Amino acid sequence: MTELRMHDLSLSLDGFAAGPAQGRDAPLGRGGERLHDWAFADATDVDRRFRARGTEGIGATIMGRNMFGPVRGSWDSDPDWRGWWGEDPPFHHEVFVLTHHARPPVEMAGGTTFSFVTEGIEAALERATAAARGGDVRLGGGASTIRQYAAAGLIDEVHVMVVPVLLGAGERLFEGDGWDGWRCVEFTPSSTVAHVRLRRDA
Amino acid sequence: MTELRMHDLSLSLDGFAAGPAQGRDAPLGRGGERLHDWAFADATDVDRRFRARGTEGIGATIMGRNMFGPVRGSWDSDPDWRGWWGEDPPFHHEVFVLTHHARPPVEMAGGTTFSFVTEGIEAALERATAAARGGDVRLGGGASTIRQYAAAGLIDEVHVMVVPVLLGAGERLFEGDGWDGWRCVEFTPSSTVAHVRLRRDA
Repeated sequence: MTELRMHDLSLSLDGFAAGPAQGRDAPLGRGGERLHDWAFADATDVDRRFRARGTEGIGATIMGRNMFGPVRGSWDSDPDWRGWWGEDPPFHHEVFVLTHHARPPVEMAGGTTFSFVTEGIEAALERATAAARGGDVRLGGGASTIRQYAAAGLIDEVHVMVVPVLLGAGERLFEGDGWDGWRCVEFTPSSTVAHVRLRRDA
Repeated sequence: MTELRMHDLSLSLDGFAAGPAQGRDAPLGRGGERLHDWAFADATDVDRRFRARGTEGIGATIMGRNMFGPVRGSWDSDPDWRGWWGEDPPFHHEVFVLTHHARPPVEMAGGTTFSFVTEGIEAALERATAAARGGDVRLGGGASTIRQYAAAGLIDEVHVMVVPVLLGAGERLFEGDGWDGWRCVEFTPSSTVAHVRLRRDA
């Protein structure tokens, strides 16, 4: 049974997954880079093991448009935008980008294709499940995309890293409907962050 | 120099220090006991060391009225309420309770006296600093009391335990003014929680 899994989401002590005012110069929002600096500065074997789990068994990825790039509205304003990850993105499978604006698929090097889904989150999950061919589907960000999938009861597992920084403002992950009944199934701290895996059915 | 220190505050993954609807039957609010059950179920040496630090060098305590008890408004509605902690409370020093309703001090066994301060948070800190005789002052809860002291720039150190549960609603700690410039000075996970110490001047 294909599962929808979220991995490697850094969460500040005050509960934010990104700072405010995300944009091309600040993809993680104002101050949001502190979430990642901290987590990546002294990665340990524990951190690397969790990072690796984010790709194990994954056959397709879904992400929100804001995670794909800073372009808003019609793609015409920046038709050459092909994601943050360069010509050979680290996915190596089909990535479904949620958007209100249709666009033909973009084939990248290394087996990654960005496909654009305008029919909503359930349609994206159906297409990703098919593309994963029995593997699991990874749910990328951002936080609002994850909250939408949680509210629809479609996520099976989330992995967050609690980072001991305060952002003060930004986008919350655990907000809105959809988080009732989630339970911690693993708590594994490294020297710099606390890895937490939660499941809906635990 | 006397410092104002907060210790041992459990914080859920979604940032709540207590659940909603605190009252006599639910001093930690609805679901809030899960914060403490988790933390205390498998206390390790690390947890005990942090617990002990919450009393080391402390000469007086300040707490909000809601931490002292469930009585609201005038004390006349329950004149016999003497705190949650029985006849010999674990403080063994003077405890200053913030309230809008004056009440004579209550002497308990073991050296604890509950004194009631109606003149505001700064007056309470002055009195507690005097009572501590060169020791530090511990800031108890609840979260709203801590937020008031933070907004006034009066706290030197906070120690929180991140507990991997979701409460969904309740009282946030890191909210409002006063948390800019705070930095993590220690991150020490145990097997069940992540202990984080932050300082304002770090």
